[in-house]
Amino acid sequence: MLVDGKPYRTVWMEPDGESVGIIDQRKLPFAFETVMLRSTEEACFAIREMLVRGAGCIGAVAAHGMFLAVQECRSVDDFGAALQAKADQLMATRPTAVNLAWAVQRQLAAINQSEAKIETAREVAIQIANEDADWCRSIGEHGLPLIADIFEKKGSEEPVNILTHCNAGWLAFVDHGSATSPIYAAHDAGIPVHVWVDETRPRNQGARLTAWELGQHGVPHTVVVDNVGGHLMQHGMVDLVITGTDRTTYTGDVANKIGTYLKALAAHDNDIPFYVALPSSTFDWETRDGVLGIPIEQRDGTEVATISGTAVGGFTSETEVNLVAKGSPVANFAFDVTPARLVTRLITERGVCAANEESILELFPEKKS
Amino acid sequence: MLVDGKPYRTVWMEPDGESVGIIDQRKLPFAFETVMLRSTEEACFAIREMLVRGAGCIGAVAAHGMFLAVQECRSVDDFGAALQAKADQLMATRPTAVNLAWAVQRQLAAINQSEAKIETAREVAIQIANEDADWCRSIGEHGLPLIADIFEKKGSEEPVNILTHCNAGWLAFVDHGSATSPIYAAHDAGIPVHVWVDETRPRNQGARLTAWELGQHGVPHTVVVDNVGGHLMQHGMVDLVITGTDRTTYTGDVANKIGTYLKALAAHDNDIPFYVALPSSTFDWETRDGVLGIPIEQRDGTEVATISGTAVGGFTSETEVNLVAKGSPVANFAFDVTPARLVTRLITERGVCAANEESILELFPEKKS
Repeated sequence: MLVDGKPYRTVWMEPDGESVGIIDQRKLPFAFETVMLRSTEEACFAIREMLVRGAGCIGAVAAHGMFLAVQECRSVDDFGAALQAKADQLMATRPTAVNLAWAVQRQLAAINQSEAKIETAREVAIQIANEDADWCRSIGEHGLPLIADIFEKKGSEEPVNILTHCNAGWLAFVDHGSATSPIYAAHDAGIPVHVWVDETRPRNQGARLTAWELGQHGVPHTVVVDNVGGHLMQHGMVDLVITGTDRTTYTGDVANKIGTYLKALAAHDNDIPFYVALPSSTFDWETRDGVLGIPIEQRDGTEVATISGTAVGGFTSETEVNLVAKGSPVANFAFDVTPARLVTRLITERGVCAANEESILELFPEKKS
Repeated sequence: MLVDGKPYRTVWMEPDGESVGIIDQRKLPFAFETVMLRSTEEACFAIREMLVRGAGCIGAVAAHGMFLAVQECRSVDDFGAALQAKADQLMATRPTAVNLAWAVQRQLAAINQSEAKIETAREVAIQIANEDADWCRSIGEHGLPLIADIFEKKGSEEPVNILTHCNAGWLAFVDHGSATSPIYAAHDAGIPVHVWVDETRPRNQGARLTAWELGQHGVPHTVVVDNVGGHLMQHGMVDLVITGTDRTTYTGDVANKIGTYLKALAAHDNDIPFYVALPSSTFDWETRDGVLGIPIEQRDGTEVATISGTAVGGFTSETEVNLVAKGSPVANFAFDVTPARLVTRLITERGVCAANEESILELFPEKKS
């Protein structure tokens, strides 16, 4: 999508034919800086230190990391063992990210079977990035009619008001995003949209990333604290909700950033459609009951007790400030699960379906056991 | 309640017989500083600049401000006109606070009718503070059995888990608080309680004030971001919710800090009692439909776009940091309305009642028209 009017992806091959480019997402929205990765070590650093984040984006960067790894291993005696070691390093950077291991394994298999190893690694890296971008674009194509439909029903030139939570934007993938893809598609098709962006405490991915990327692409939006959504919905200021998901069961239960469940309850109470956008790689084909079955990560309390931003009137480097008194106990639950009964529809790269086993398996018949 | 083991109220007569003491609540939780008010001008400053806040607390400080005013006016030729001017100054500090005007008018009437004006002003100030503290203590007495009952039903020594939003604590009144009063009563009665404290963006009154006052009084608690409550309730980690209210209609609709409605929805979805504690002065005896009838204040977006705290590793003076990119649009809705259907019971100084017109008027029969 656009940054300063120029199209960007979250990861790309540099023109030198040897390096990989990424955006240092940690510095957004206060500074836009791209970084050139020249070694596996640098790719590992970028993933571990969260210069890049989001399942799709991490997978694609890891795939590009394997392209850097092949170059480093080419003159090593035992190429296979050396490449495996680099692959293990990459996979160890964020152990819970499924896309990461999947992308690295796919690269390993392709490279090991190929004679032209560097060319293969380059091709597969580009392929993985393109697939991710294509999936996301398809999500946008399937979601667009849902927004267009609401616009027609409103029967005015008033924008369609969409609420989203956290960042399921292009920054979390390679391009387009999941939740944002139908929004970008509608905007680019000339349908007036306005997005309510939940700031999404504790890490504020909404305020930092979603607001930034919507602004760069020219999509009208307003940042609100996470407490506001219910009030907006009660007063007709939200026409639909779209969020992403970190894991969705084949029965339609949606694990996503903490607080999603509260917005789904408010949408339900006010008869507002609540959509969840996801590439099919996000489905969990094993877990039946998401509320009971999906373990919820508890993260370091520092994310709650402190926050960072640029000092008002200061420079673009950030200052971290305490939000609670020293020694005040805090807890940090990272995700919650929205039961399928509160989800209006799922938007996937194959199309739109209801959030239940039957409809999901109708769209993905190959998963029927 | 206790601060460093010593009982405090939010406002008191200083031993010199001429001045008034308050806590500078702006500096909590990073510094505990008391301030001596020696003039009407200083009392106005304290209210206007929010050294004190909360309806009950503002009313009591204004009443004490009138005691300062009488002293300043005693040697003025036209005492009546001079005192009226001071009263007007006090009432203009926070125009929307009902308790403020009420306390000042009550003082004016009492002082004008009295020969011993200074003594009367002192007595009425103390009386207004005592009444506020008594009402809050009664709320605690009426709420205590609700907590005791849950503790008995649990049938273990596990603490009763209570979630609260914003600060309806003793800092917002003179003592005890509204939502916190049943909690302090239970804790002081030896019932083990644990409080989940919503940080309450944008102004973080939960993280700053509620967590601090609970900690000072020795009540176990944990600060969470506002997004967490639904997840906690879904997983049996909340036994009841208690919040305060800024205005409650005689039909039971509850206006309170933005985000309260979302917690009420989650409590309802998980069959958890949702209590609202209030002194009867908070009832709106005119408005029938709270969702449609109560105007919701939109405050300055700076409260959303920035936040302040002490720099990590730094001193107790605070730094203000930006949370969104420059020019990113923000909106700041201060309150929302929880419909009566989501409120389990109201806890008032007269007792507990259902959140509907019939039950409320049964408790306050003098309000029947």
